[in-house]
Amino acid sequence: MNFPFEKRFPSELNRDHDYYMSHAYNQALLAWEKDEVPIGAVIVHEGGIIASAFNQTRSTNDPSAHAEMLAISQASNSLGDWRLNNCILYVTKEPCPMCAGALVVARIQKVYFGLSDTKMGCLGGATHLGQLPESNHKFEAVGGILEKENHALLNAFFEKKRAEKKNRSAEDPTL
Amino acid sequence: MNFPFEKRFPSELNRDHDYYMSHAYNQALLAWEKDEVPIGAVIVHEGGIIASAFNQTRSTNDPSAHAEMLAISQASNSLGDWRLNNCILYVTKEPCPMCAGALVVARIQKVYFGLSDTKMGCLGGATHLGQLPESNHKFEAVGGILEKENHALLNAFFEKKRAEKKNRSAEDPTL
Repeated sequence: MNFPFEKRFPSELNRDHDYYMSHAYNQALLAWEKDEVPIGAVIVHEGGIIASAFNQTRSTNDPSAHAEMLAISQASNSLGDWRLNNCILYVTKEPCPMCAGALVVARIQKVYFGLSDTKMGCLGGATHLGQLPESNHKFEAVGGILEKENHALLNAFFEKKRAEKKNRSAEDPTL
Repeated sequence: MNFPFEKRFPSELNRDHDYYMSHAYNQALLAWEKDEVPIGAVIVHEGGIIASAFNQTRSTNDPSAHAEMLAISQASNSLGDWRLNNCILYVTKEPCPMCAGALVVARIQKVYFGLSDTKMGCLGGATHLGQLPESNHKFEAVGGILEKENHALLNAFFEKKRAEKKNRSAEDPTL
Protein backbone atom coordinates (compact mmCIF):
# COMPACT_ATOMS: atom_id res chain seq x y z
CA MET A 1 0.00 0.00 0.00
CA ASN A 2 1.36 3.40 -0.97
CA PHE A 3 1.21 6.07 1.67
CA PRO A 4 -2.25 7.50 1.05
CA PHE A 5 -2.15 10.58 3.25
CA GLU A 6 -0.95 14.08 2.53
CA LYS A 7 0.51 16.61 4.88
CA ARG A 8 -1.92 19.43 5.71
CA PHE A 9 -1.06 23.07 5.06
CA PRO A 10 -3.38 25.19 7.21
CA SER A 11 -3.44 28.95 6.65
CA GLU A 12 -1.32 30.93 9.10
CA LEU A 13 -4.00 33.63 8.95
CA ASN A 14 -6.66 31.54 10.63
CA ARG A 15 -5.44 30.05 13.88
CA ASP A 16 -8.52 28.01 14.72
CA HIS A 17 -8.93 24.44 15.99
CA ASP A 18 -8.34 23.08 12.48
CA TYR A 19 -5.06 24.98 12.29
CA TYR A 20 -3.65 23.50 15.50
CA MET A 21 -5.07 20.03 14.91
CA SER A 22 -3.58 20.05 11.41
CA HIS A 23 -0.16 20.44 13.01
CA ALA A 24 -0.92 17.54 15.37
CA TYR A 25 -2.09 15.51 12.34
CA ASN A 26 1.17 16.25 10.52
CA GLN A 27 3.03 14.94 13.57
CA ALA A 28 0.97 11.75 13.31
CA LEU A 29 2.10 11.38 9.67
CA LEU A 30 5.72 11.54 10.88
CA ALA A 31 4.92 8.69 13.31
CA TRP A 32 3.59 6.56 10.44
CA GLU A 33 6.81 7.20 8.46
CA LYS A 34 8.69 5.59 11.35
CA ASP A 35 6.24 2.69 11.54
CA GLU A 36 4.81 4.00 14.82
CA VAL A 37 1.08 4.11 15.62
CA PRO A 38 0.20 7.48 14.01
CA ILE A 39 -0.74 9.76 16.88
CA GLY A 40 0.47 13.34 17.09
CA ALA A 41 0.16 16.23 19.54
CA VAL A 42 0.99 19.91 19.83
CA ILE A 43 0.86 22.26 22.82
CA VAL A 44 -0.19 25.88 22.36
CA HIS A 45 0.77 28.81 24.58
CA GLU A 46 -0.43 32.34 23.85
CA GLY A 47 -1.40 31.27 20.36
CA GLY A 48 1.99 29.81 19.48
CA ILE A 49 2.93 26.14 19.21
CA ILE A 50 5.61 25.47 21.83
CA ALA A 51 5.72 21.67 21.54
CA SER A 52 5.15 19.14 18.74
CA ALA A 53 5.56 15.41 19.16
CA PHE A 54 4.48 12.04 17.81
CA ASN A 55 4.19 8.60 19.33
CA GLN A 56 7.58 6.85 19.60
CA THR A 57 6.87 3.80 21.76
CA ARG A 58 8.22 1.29 19.24
CA SER A 59 11.51 2.97 18.34
CA THR A 60 12.33 3.83 21.95
CA ASN A 61 10.91 0.55 23.35
CA ASP A 62 9.34 2.78 26.00
CA PRO A 63 5.58 2.55 26.52
CA SER A 64 5.55 6.00 28.08
CA ALA A 65 6.83 7.65 24.88
CA HIS A 66 3.31 8.65 23.81
CA ALA A 67 2.93 11.87 21.80
CA GLU A 68 1.27 13.67 24.73
CA MET A 69 3.98 12.75 27.26
CA LEU A 70 6.74 13.94 24.92
CA ALA A 71 4.83 17.15 24.19
CA ILE A 72 4.29 17.85 27.92
CA SER A 73 7.99 17.41 28.52
CA GLN A 74 8.89 19.74 25.60
CA ALA A 75 6.43 22.40 26.74
CA SER A 76 7.74 22.31 30.33
CA ASN A 77 11.28 22.74 29.05
CA SER A 78 10.22 25.53 26.73
CA LEU A 79 8.45 27.48 29.50
CA GLY A 80 10.94 26.60 32.26
CA ASP A 81 7.97 25.59 34.38
CA TRP A 82 6.23 22.24 34.74
CA ARG A 83 2.88 23.97 35.34
CA LEU A 84 1.10 24.27 32.00
CA ASN A 85 -1.87 26.27 33.35
CA ASN A 86 -2.01 28.51 30.30
CA CYS A 87 -1.41 25.80 27.74
CA ILE A 88 -3.79 23.94 25.44
CA LEU A 89 -3.09 20.47 24.09
CA TYR A 90 -4.27 19.27 20.68
CA VAL A 91 -3.96 15.53 20.12
CA THR A 92 -5.26 13.37 17.28
CA LYS A 93 -6.83 10.74 19.59
CA GLU A 94 -8.33 10.86 23.08
CA PRO A 95 -5.53 10.39 25.64
CA CYS A 96 -4.94 7.04 27.39
CA PRO A 97 -5.05 6.65 31.21
CA MET A 98 -1.37 7.57 31.63
CA CYS A 99 -1.42 10.64 29.38
CA ALA A 100 -4.73 11.91 30.75
CA GLY A 101 -3.31 11.53 34.27
CA ALA A 102 -0.11 13.33 33.30
CA LEU A 103 -2.22 16.22 31.95
CA VAL A 104 -3.86 16.53 35.38
CA VAL A 105 -0.47 16.57 37.11
CA ALA A 106 0.86 19.10 34.57
CA ARG A 107 -2.23 21.30 35.18
CA ILE A 108 -3.09 21.67 31.50
CA GLN A 109 -5.71 24.34 30.78
CA LYS A 110 -7.75 22.52 28.12
CA VAL A 111 -7.54 19.62 25.69
CA TYR A 112 -8.90 19.21 22.15
CA PHE A 113 -8.73 15.77 20.60
CA GLY A 114 -9.67 14.08 17.32
CA LEU A 115 -11.40 10.76 17.74
CA SER A 116 -12.81 9.44 20.99
CA ASP A 117 -11.82 6.15 22.62
CA THR A 118 -14.61 4.67 24.72
CA LYS A 119 -12.39 1.73 25.71
CA MET A 120 -9.21 3.38 27.03
CA GLY A 121 -9.77 7.13 26.60
CA CYS A 122 -9.64 8.95 29.92
CA LEU A 123 -10.92 12.41 29.01
CA GLY A 124 -14.57 11.47 28.58
CA GLY A 125 -14.48 8.06 26.85
CA ALA A 126 -13.95 5.39 29.51
CA THR A 127 -13.73 7.98 32.32
CA HIS A 128 -12.73 11.66 32.69
CA LEU A 129 -9.64 12.33 34.78
CA GLY A 130 -9.97 16.06 34.12
CA GLN A 131 -13.24 16.01 36.07
CA LEU A 132 -12.49 13.98 39.22
CA PRO A 133 -14.99 15.43 41.73
CA GLU A 134 -12.50 16.51 44.42
CA SER A 135 -9.47 17.04 42.19
CA ASN A 136 -7.23 20.04 42.78
CA HIS A 137 -7.03 20.54 39.01
CA LYS A 138 -9.97 20.18 36.66
CA PHE A 139 -10.12 20.94 32.96
CA GLU A 140 -12.36 20.50 29.94
CA ALA A 141 -11.70 18.23 27.00
CA VAL A 142 -13.44 18.55 23.63
CA GLY A 143 -13.36 15.81 21.01
CA GLY A 144 -14.25 15.65 17.34
CA ILE A 145 -11.62 18.01 15.88
CA LEU A 146 -10.62 16.73 12.40
CA GLU A 147 -12.19 13.50 13.59
CA LYS A 148 -12.75 11.98 10.15
CA GLU A 149 -9.17 12.59 9.05
CA ASN A 150 -7.65 11.33 12.28
CA HIS A 151 -9.86 8.27 12.26
CA ALA A 152 -8.99 7.43 8.64
CA LEU A 153 -5.28 7.70 9.38
CA LEU A 154 -5.36 5.35 12.39
CA ASN A 155 -7.66 2.87 10.64
CA ALA A 156 -5.40 2.71 7.59
CA PHE A 157 -2.35 2.10 9.78
CA PHE A 158 -3.93 -0.84 11.61
CA GLU A 159 -5.23 -2.25 8.30
CA LYS A 160 -1.69 -2.11 6.95
CA LYS A 161 -0.39 -3.87 10.07
CA ARG A 162 -2.99 -6.63 9.74
CA ALA A 163 -2.12 -7.10 6.06
CA GLU A 164 1.60 -7.32 6.87
CA LYS A 165 0.92 -9.92 9.55
CA LYS A 166 -1.20 -11.95 7.14
CA ASN A 167 1.55 -11.84 4.51
CA ARG A 168 4.13 -13.00 7.03
CA SER A 169 1.87 -15.88 8.08
CA ALA A 170 1.42 -16.92 4.44
CA GLU A 171 5.20 -17.02 3.99
CA ASP A 172 5.78 -18.91 7.23
CA PRO A 173 2.82 -21.07 8.27
CA THR A 174 4.31 -21.61 11.75
CA LEU A 175 3.65 -17.94 12.60
CA MET B 1 11.82 19.15 64.69
CA ASN B 2 14.18 16.19 64.89
CA PHE B 3 13.59 13.44 62.39
CA PRO B 4 11.13 11.28 64.33
CA PHE B 5 11.05 8.17 62.13
CA GLU B 6 13.24 5.10 62.12
CA LYS B 7 14.17 2.88 59.23
CA ARG B 8 12.36 -0.48 59.34
CA PHE B 9 14.26 -3.77 59.39
CA PRO B 10 11.83 -6.48 58.28
CA SER B 11 12.94 -10.11 58.64
CA GLU B 12 14.25 -11.66 55.43
CA LEU B 13 12.59 -14.91 56.53
CA ASN B 14 9.07 -13.59 56.21
CA ARG B 15 8.44 -12.03 52.82
CA ASP B 16 4.93 -10.84 53.42
CA HIS B 17 3.18 -7.55 52.62
CA ASP B 18 4.82 -5.91 55.64
CA TYR B 19 8.24 -6.96 54.36
CA TYR B 20 7.81 -5.36 50.93
CA MET B 21 5.97 -2.31 52.23
CA SER B 22 8.72 -1.76 54.80
CA HIS B 23 11.16 -1.42 51.92
CA ALA B 24 8.83 1.08 50.22
CA TYR B 25 8.55 2.93 53.57
CA ASN B 26 12.36 3.08 53.85
CA GLN B 27 12.41 4.65 50.39
CA ALA B 28 9.94 7.25 51.63
CA LEU B 29 12.34 8.08 54.48
CA LEU B 30 15.07 8.72 51.88
CA ALA B 31 12.69 11.16 50.16
CA TRP B 32 12.18 13.06 53.44
CA GLU B 33 15.97 13.32 53.87
CA LYS B 34 16.06 15.19 50.56
CA ASP B 35 13.12 17.40 51.55
CA GLU B 36 10.83 15.61 49.07
CA VAL B 37 7.25 14.57 49.88
CA PRO B 38 7.94 11.18 51.53
CA ILE B 39 6.47 8.57 49.19
CA GLY B 40 8.33 5.37 48.33
CA ALA B 41 7.74 2.38 46.07
CA VAL B 42 9.24 -1.01 45.26
CA ILE B 43 8.47 -3.48 42.48
CA VAL B 44 8.61 -7.20 43.15
CA HIS B 45 9.26 -9.94 40.58
CA GLU B 46 9.34 -13.61 41.55
CA GLY B 47 9.66 -12.62 45.20
CA GLY B 48 12.65 -10.35 44.69
CA ILE B 49 12.71 -6.55 44.72
CA ILE B 50 13.83 -5.39 41.25
CA ALA B 51 13.11 -1.66 41.65
CA SER B 52 13.16 0.80 44.58
CA ALA B 53 12.44 4.48 44.23
CA PHE B 54 11.25 7.56 46.06
CA ASN B 55 9.54 10.75 44.98
CA GLN B 56 11.98 13.25 43.45
CA THR B 57 9.73 15.91 41.93
CA ARG B 58 11.34 18.80 43.80
CA SER B 59 15.01 18.03 43.19
CA THR B 60 14.45 17.18 39.50
CA ASN B 61 11.85 19.94 38.99
CA ASP B 62 9.91 17.27 37.10
CA PRO B 63 6.32 16.55 38.19
CA SER B 64 6.51 13.11 36.58
CA ALA B 65 9.34 12.01 38.90
CA HIS B 66 6.93 10.26 41.27
CA ALA B 67 8.20 7.15 43.09
CA GLU B 68 5.97 4.85 41.04
CA MET B 69 7.09 6.25 37.64
CA LEU B 70 10.76 5.89 38.58
CA ALA B 71 10.15 2.35 39.86
CA ILE B 72 8.31 1.35 36.64
CA SER B 73 11.23 2.63 34.60
CA GLN B 74 13.78 0.74 36.75
CA ALA B 75 11.78 -2.48 36.60
CA SER B 76 11.44 -2.27 32.80
CA ASN B 77 15.19 -1.78 32.48
CA SER B 78 15.89 -4.62 34.88
CA LEU B 79 13.65 -7.08 32.99
CA GLY B 80 14.49 -5.77 29.50
CA ASP B 81 10.75 -5.62 28.85
CA TRP B 82 8.28 -2.82 29.42
CA ARG B 83 5.51 -5.31 30.17
CA LEU B 84 5.39 -5.84 33.92
CA ASN B 85 2.70 -8.58 33.82
CA ASN B 86 4.38 -10.62 36.54
CA CYS B 87 5.31 -7.72 38.76
CA ILE B 88 3.72 -6.37 41.92
CA LEU B 89 4.04 -2.75 43.05
CA TYR B 90 4.12 -1.68 46.69
CA VAL B 91 3.72 2.05 47.27
CA THR B 92 3.23 3.97 50.50
CA LYS B 93 0.26 6.02 49.19
CA GLU B 94 -2.47 5.36 46.63
CA PRO B 95 -1.17 6.34 43.15
CA CYS B 96 -2.19 9.64 41.49
CA PRO B 97 -3.95 9.78 38.08
CA MET B 98 -0.65 9.76 36.14
CA CYS B 99 0.97 6.89 38.05
CA ALA B 100 -2.21 4.79 38.10
CA GLY B 101 -2.50 5.31 34.32
CA ALA B 102 1.14 4.39 33.79
CA LEU B 103 0.56 1.16 35.74
CA VAL B 104 -2.24 0.28 33.29
CA VAL B 105 0.05 0.96 30.31
CA ALA B 106 2.88 -1.05 31.95
CA ARG B 107 0.45 -3.94 32.56
CA ILE B 108 1.28 -4.30 36.25
CA GLN B 109 -0.09 -7.49 37.84
CA LYS B 110 -1.20 -6.09 41.19
CA VAL B 111 -0.73 -3.07 43.47
CA TYR B 112 -0.57 -2.83 47.26
CA PHE B 113 -0.62 0.63 48.78
CA GLY B 114 -0.50 2.22 52.24
CA LEU B 115 -2.98 5.00 52.75
CA SER B 116 -5.89 5.77 50.45
CA ASP B 117 -6.49 9.10 48.74
CA THR B 118 -10.15 9.75 48.05
CA LYS B 119 -9.33 13.07 46.39
CA MET B 120 -6.67 12.17 43.79
CA GLY B 121 -6.07 8.43 44.21
CA CYS B 122 -6.90 6.51 41.03
CA LEU B 123 -6.81 2.91 42.21
CA GLY B 124 -10.06 2.96 44.16
CA GLY B 125 -10.10 6.38 45.87
CA ALA B 126 -11.37 8.95 43.37
CA THR B 127 -11.73 6.34 40.59
CA HIS B 128 -10.11 3.00 39.64
CA LEU B 129 -8.07 2.99 36.43
CA GLY B 130 -7.19 -0.67 36.97
CA GLN B 131 -10.88 -1.52 36.56
CA LEU B 132 -12.02 0.46 33.49
CA PRO B 133 -14.91 -1.68 32.16
CA GLU B 134 -13.54 -2.26 28.64
CA SER B 135 -9.84 -1.93 29.38
CA ASN B 136 -7.39 -4.34 27.78
CA HIS B 137 -5.54 -4.57 31.11
CA LYS B 138 -7.24 -4.81 34.46
CA PHE B 139 -5.67 -5.38 37.86
CA GLU B 140 -6.51 -5.32 41.54
CA ALA B 141 -5.26 -2.81 44.06
CA VAL B 142 -5.33 -3.35 47.83
CA GLY B 143 -4.84 -0.54 50.32
CA GLY B 144 -4.16 -0.40 54.04
CA ILE B 145 -0.66 -1.97 54.15
CA LEU B 146 1.33 -0.30 56.98
CA GLU B 147 -1.32 2.38 56.70
CA LYS B 148 -0.77 3.90 60.15
CA GLU B 149 2.98 4.23 59.65
CA ASN B 150 2.69 5.65 56.13
CA HIS B 151 0.02 8.09 57.23
CA ALA B 152 2.07 9.30 60.22
CA LEU B 153 5.09 9.89 57.99
CA LEU B 154 3.21 11.98 55.42
CA ASN B 155 1.33 13.93 58.09
CA ALA B 156 4.52 14.80 59.94
CA PHE B 157 6.15 16.00 56.72
CA PHE B 158 3.33 18.36 55.87
CA GLU B 159 3.19 19.59 59.49
CA LYS B 160 6.91 20.38 59.25
CA LYS B 161 6.33 22.25 55.98
CA ARG B 162 3.53 24.31 57.50
CA ALA B 163 5.69 25.16 60.50
CA GLU B 164 8.57 26.23 58.24
CA LYS B 165 6.24 28.45 56.24
CA LYS B 166 4.88 30.03 59.41
CA ASN B 167 8.42 30.73 60.66
CA ARG B 168 9.36 32.35 57.36
CA SER B 169 6.25 34.55 57.49
CA ALA B 170 7.11 35.62 61.06
CA GLU B 171 10.61 36.65 59.93
CA ASP B 172 9.34 38.45 56.85
CA PRO B 173 5.78 39.79 57.22
CA THR B 174 5.57 40.49 53.48
CA LEU B 175 5.50 36.73 52.76
